[in-house]
Amino acid sequence: MLSYNAILRPELEQWSFTETAFHSLAQGKCESVMSLGNGYMGLRSATEEAYIGATRNLFVNGTFNRFDDLEVTELPNAADVTQVELMIDGKRFSLDTGTVTEYERTLNLRDAELTRAFIWKNAEGKRVKFEFKRFVSMQDLHLIGLKIRLTPLDEGIHLRLASGINAQVSNSGSQHFHEGEKRIFDKKYLQLVQTTTESKVDFVLSALHRFWIDGVSSDPEPLMEIERRKMEMAYSFDLKVGQTLEMHKLIQVHTSRDADVPDSVNLDSLRKHSLQALQQSETSGYDQLFLLHQQAWAAIWDRYAFEIDSKNGFDLLALRFAIYHMMVMTPMHDRRMGIGAKGLSGEGYKGHSFWDTEIFILPFFIYSDPKIARTLLEYRFLGLEGARRKAKENGYEGAMYPWEVAWPSDGEVTPVWGAVDVVTGKQTKIWSGFIEQHITSDIAYAVWHYYQASGDQQFMDEYGYEMIFDTATFWSSRLEWNEENSRYEINEVIGPDEYKEHVNNNAFTNYMAHFNLQLALGYYDELKERNPELLSRLDASLNLQARAPQWQEKADAIYLPQPDERGIIAQDDTYLDKQILDLTPYKAQAKVGTLFQDYSLDQVNEMQISKQADILMLFYLLENRFPRELKRANYDYYEPKTLHDSSLSFSTHSILASDFDDEQLAYELFRRAAEIDLGPHEHSSDAGIHAASLGGIWQCVVMGFAGARMLDGQLHLHPKLPEAWERLSFPLYWKGAKLQLSIRKERLEIQTEDKNEVRLVLFGKKVSFTGQLQFELIHI
Amino acid sequence: MLSYNAILRPELEQWSFTETAFHSLAQGKCESVMSLGNGYMGLRSATEEAYIGATRNLFVNGTFNRFDDLEVTELPNAADVTQVELMIDGKRFSLDTGTVTEYERTLNLRDAELTRAFIWKNAEGKRVKFEFKRFVSMQDLHLIGLKIRLTPLDEGIHLRLASGINAQVSNSGSQHFHEGEKRIFDKKYLQLVQTTTESKVDFVLSALHRFWIDGVSSDPEPLMEIERRKMEMAYSFDLKVGQTLEMHKLIQVHTSRDADVPDSVNLDSLRKHSLQALQQSETSGYDQLFLLHQQAWAAIWDRYAFEIDSKNGFDLLALRFAIYHMMVMTPMHDRRMGIGAKGLSGEGYKGHSFWDTEIFILPFFIYSDPKIARTLLEYRFLGLEGARRKAKENGYEGAMYPWEVAWPSDGEVTPVWGAVDVVTGKQTKIWSGFIEQHITSDIAYAVWHYYQASGDQQFMDEYGYEMIFDTATFWSSRLEWNEENSRYEINEVIGPDEYKEHVNNNAFTNYMAHFNLQLALGYYDELKERNPELLSRLDASLNLQARAPQWQEKADAIYLPQPDERGIIAQDDTYLDKQILDLTPYKAQAKVGTLFQDYSLDQVNEMQISKQADILMLFYLLENRFPRELKRANYDYYEPKTLHDSSLSFSTHSILASDFDDEQLAYELFRRAAEIDLGPHEHSSDAGIHAASLGGIWQCVVMGFAGARMLDGQLHLHPKLPEAWERLSFPLYWKGAKLQLSIRKERLEIQTEDKNEVRLVLFGKKVSFTGQLQFELIHI
Repeated sequence: MLSYNAILRPELEQWSFTETAFHSLAQGKCESVMSLGNGYMGLRSATEEAYIGATRNLFVNGTFNRFDDLEVTELPNAADVTQVELMIDGKRFSLDTGTVTEYERTLNLRDAELTRAFIWKNAEGKRVKFEFKRFVSMQDLHLIGLKIRLTPLDEGIHLRLASGINAQVSNSGSQHFHEGEKRIFDKKYLQLVQTTTESKVDFVLSALHRFWIDGVSSDPEPLMEIERRKMEMAYSFDLKVGQTLEMHKLIQVHTSRDADVPDSVNLDSLRKHSLQALQQSETSGYDQLFLLHQQAWAAIWDRYAFEIDSKNGFDLLALRFAIYHMMVMTPMHDRRMGIGAKGLSGEGYKGHSFWDTEIFILPFFIYSDPKIARTLLEYRFLGLEGARRKAKENGYEGAMYPWEVAWPSDGEVTPVWGAVDVVTGKQTKIWSGFIEQHITSDIAYAVWHYYQASGDQQFMDEYGYEMIFDTATFWSSRLEWNEENSRYEINEVIGPDEYKEHVNNNAFTNYMAHFNLQLALGYYDELKERNPELLSRLDASLNLQARAPQWQEKADAIYLPQPDERGIIAQDDTYLDKQILDLTPYKAQAKVGTLFQDYSLDQVNEMQISKQADILMLFYLLENRFPRELKRANYDYYEPKTLHDSSLSFSTHSILASDFDDEQLAYELFRRAAEIDLGPHEHSSDAGIHAASLGGIWQCVVMGFAGARMLDGQLHLHPKLPEAWERLSFPLYWKGAKLQLSIRKERLEIQTEDKNEVRLVLFGKKVSFTGQLQFELIHI
Repeated sequence: MLSYNAILRPELEQWSFTETAFHSLAQGKCESVMSLGNGYMGLRSATEEAYIGATRNLFVNGTFNRFDDLEVTELPNAADVTQVELMIDGKRFSLDTGTVTEYERTLNLRDAELTRAFIWKNAEGKRVKFEFKRFVSMQDLHLIGLKIRLTPLDEGIHLRLASGINAQVSNSGSQHFHEGEKRIFDKKYLQLVQTTTESKVDFVLSALHRFWIDGVSSDPEPLMEIERRKMEMAYSFDLKVGQTLEMHKLIQVHTSRDADVPDSVNLDSLRKHSLQALQQSETSGYDQLFLLHQQAWAAIWDRYAFEIDSKNGFDLLALRFAIYHMMVMTPMHDRRMGIGAKGLSGEGYKGHSFWDTEIFILPFFIYSDPKIARTLLEYRFLGLEGARRKAKENGYEGAMYPWEVAWPSDGEVTPVWGAVDVVTGKQTKIWSGFIEQHITSDIAYAVWHYYQASGDQQFMDEYGYEMIFDTATFWSSRLEWNEENSRYEINEVIGPDEYKEHVNNNAFTNYMAHFNLQLALGYYDELKERNPELLSRLDASLNLQARAPQWQEKADAIYLPQPDERGIIAQDDTYLDKQILDLTPYKAQAKVGTLFQDYSLDQVNEMQISKQADILMLFYLLENRFPRELKRANYDYYEPKTLHDSSLSFSTHSILASDFDDEQLAYELFRRAAEIDLGPHEHSSDAGIHAASLGGIWQCVVMGFAGARMLDGQLHLHPKLPEAWERLSFPLYWKGAKLQLSIRKERLEIQTEDKNEVRLVLFGKKVSFTGQLQFELIHI
């Protein structure tokens, strides 16, 4: 369905992808993968005209609301501003009727512009040319622009165009908003207010329409309709053959959580601000606003400039797709907000943040834009409040991070009920919020990772040490003494593999908890030496003098599962004893989760079936704790038992394959990771794009093919380009310096404008340089 | 669009109407006018397959809920059970694609059955025959049945049928339900629970699907999906050419407000009951269940047997249409519930009851089924609690009935904000809940009307006197003394004509208040004589000894506007001084309310423009207070100034025209009343059918053409058949006796099985008879 054929848009080779035919049964795909945004808000790309099966979403980051006590907080779906009803000669225009030629819907990643064009012939044989454009401004975070052009090709048409602001939308039925005031100013400016029911966040949406016929301003008298939760303007035109009607719709979106609007918590002042902003946008005009947006994106692409000379143009496109979506979904403007597991592109996972951010997405920012990485970690610092509450509620100490988080102080927001169990006919209980506990050490790991790569001491002093110390305190309260084996264990958990619930001593969880404890101990000792004043300040609130010996005791005696005679580390205490099922038929399915048409989660729990990388993820994160042969043996054991039902799975496997020098496998898995959203499966992205997988795509390239890795505080590089690739070039930030890497099979170049000496480990050898490094690769 | 052509269904002449072509732009029409129900619940007739613009509604009477403090309570839209997705050869079936022949959608009023049939040829030229049937059982109030038959005519097809229970629906965006438990029993029985958010009414919906191929039971293994607020089963079939697949879907609907289910407030017990009821339905099977439903309707038509020999078959159909809808919308089973202004056929007016019930619909029940009339009045008796609260809140005494009422004890539930004002761009304020006060005397009038016609003394003793006394007390506290004119006035009100807000001395309001006061005085005196014990009991709670003199004082000095030199009674103090606008262009519009595209309500307020009969309604209700010439003069003055923007207007004008012996005008206005829902205007019924207008249709015939009227406690008859009518026959209940009237232009027959003597006033002459009366009419 999606075409990456450069022939369609030669000027946008590897910058765009195109839908070449419209299928109303699979709208979710393009709605998600072509969604627009700017970190402040995300706009799902539903078509202007309505279809059954369309999902119209507009999310503003951080505006969480809870529908009722039985549901968890989620990002509310704000009023729709993109639907435009086009009545041609009294009939509603729809691609399901008539015939369509020259159809193209394209997301231009370079300009972050969605375009759609086609010629439609109605049942009476009249042809009309349609062109649509849309952008969510990266320059003015509150601005959405829509443009429609219509030209009758055979004879004149009567057109009735109805467009407005529609707050009848909901989150799959849950309505998060009070109906607010609706107002039309000067028969032109629409303004609709919505306030969330529980969190009381005000939304103000203002919109206007302007019209031109053959370039001449032609705004007709509108017919105004205000219904329940909805306001609309209808405009009528008689277009002669060959005349082009152009409509611009400009929309301003504001909420009382806006930090950039003075006095945004005052609704009157917010409404005034919104109207003024709309009037200013009108003065600039669509084309000028789009130009400023284009410039903002040019600066982004300049910063993240990637080049790949590959036999497959798709590779670079996939990488740009990943970077594009990480830009549109990341709240770079406000540290009180995180990244949703589906970004801002769909209702899936309710806008909540998971370990996806720290383990899959954060590395991109750590090495590409450390300021943003820091913002994301500060979000977790603000989350300490909720994490401490969660620990207390569960009878633990320190900071027990929520498995899912929304507004930072909200604490745990994982829903409790999931899909149907085929055996009992009941909904299955989601245990992650209770027992998927590795998130806490994942966050400690991310703090350490950021610090090591950036050298941002100020961040550590203000935020990082506190997070690491208090997560260690959680673990030391969480560990359970097993008298029989004289060791500390972690029982009743879910590891990264969510198809194993209520397991004991999940290796990933235990090793990462151990890492977290050791990290705290190390920093505690270091601060005693280097900054006793800070330590004493932290001690006052965190009671470190009492905690540190406990960390030590627990770290010394925690059970760290060891390899068996085959070199296999058990994923948990019972995994290796369970029944093995041939997964071939399920792995061959395009759709994930098909296993559950045949087995219940309880049944899967009793078999050697993994959803995703579990212990393999451990080998990646703590790579120098495990020998290479052990990793390979475990890869060969676990991969056939892994369904890759999580989008987090392929990229981890790809990077490990790179580590094993299995470049072909690594490349194949990179492609599969890239195809989670961009591939042919029609429904994979219905609930939104897979945010973690986007970070994973970047990691496949930079951690995998370029072999970049932070080990013991040093930057390691060990490039292993895929066979199809001639050259890979990208920027990488290390300890505050921007390094521009250019990797060919036979040569590696690194340039920096930084004055300081750069030190790194190249193919296992320590190297240092200033300005530029060239390195010839001689293959053995 | 609608056809009443007997040729389509000769066996159902004047019993059915048919949509002969499907128009997705005007779905609201058939959804409403073909809606099904049984007083317990109402099911809007949206098509099984989904279309843009469809409105899927299922309402259960009396289950009101308030979304938030900013909204008023309304009937919540329960989960949808009628949508069925049909995928044929991998493409979604839709009448918007392919070609359709032999299309018919018919509401059979006799059997209360909705059928739809057509042959559809898909884009590839394959033809498939479709047949749909649906009923909402009149025998089992909780049962809905759906039947689908599909036959491929040219070659085999692959069919995927997905159907379930979908609670993602809302009331135009307002979600009234918590998401409740969803459960599948035995891979067959779906059960979904919803609980209203504020009133905490539990809904339990249970459903099953059964399949036959060419009559052979063929239930395939379903694919089960449970999503948010939604559960669905998908079934796949390969149908050979000529094979017929038949699906039956049976649905049981229960709520914790059910009075007929033991322990319905216990959710567990309600769920069990619902599942058992579904399993019992399964045992009976669709066809048997339909038969029982048919029998229940046969009994209804037997009771309300109407015959009209008219040149226009439409006339009898219109009457049956009115009776059908009054049956499906009236909660005959539960006196805690009223009749919504749109019945149970749409979201319009939120399921609230207005004076529409007492003044427009109640007469039908008073004269056709007095038990139901009593139930509806007992609903108002239960509403005394809210009425007394409203009086108190407004600084008055007694019972001030709410302009809109929902659950009886809720009191006033009129919303505060309405449509957009074209001048200010703001929403207009709805004043009815504050100042449209005539509802209180309308209810007192209805009590009196019922009592006079039925002679139900027990009702009066238990409920009626209390209602009449306490409403009189309201009026006596409401009247304002005008010192200058030495009279009591009622200022700052809205009369029946809602285009005049904040007027003083609306004639209708003043005269009806006076009527209410006099009624109370009369009954007070009567009870003193006849039943002092009851009076003393009522006195204890209503303080009658102190009130009665006040009633007298106010009744004596209330200002009752008198005719001017032209014989015109001013609608209110200032109406006659206002500017006159030529309404011809607006009266020619098919759509109501078009005036407001040009003028704001404030502007209309300052012109001699009426929405509906106002003073003319007074002439009808208190007909023997006003001489005929005065009525005619006022009719001629006010009608040209009346837009008939209310559906309550035509029938009142028609009856008055009958009174003036203007039979042609009366007939024309009867047709216009009947065409409010059944006529050609595509959008008139979008928000639901016009309940009051249905009662009005019946009144046009019985009060108008048959000239039946209760005057001074006596039944008057003065038939004036329209020119097109040869005969009119119908039953009429009077003082407990059923009279069967048969009216021809030249002869009148009345039969009764009642043993007692029947007394009535025929053409102004007192007549009495036993058993049968024949009366030859000689025209002068």
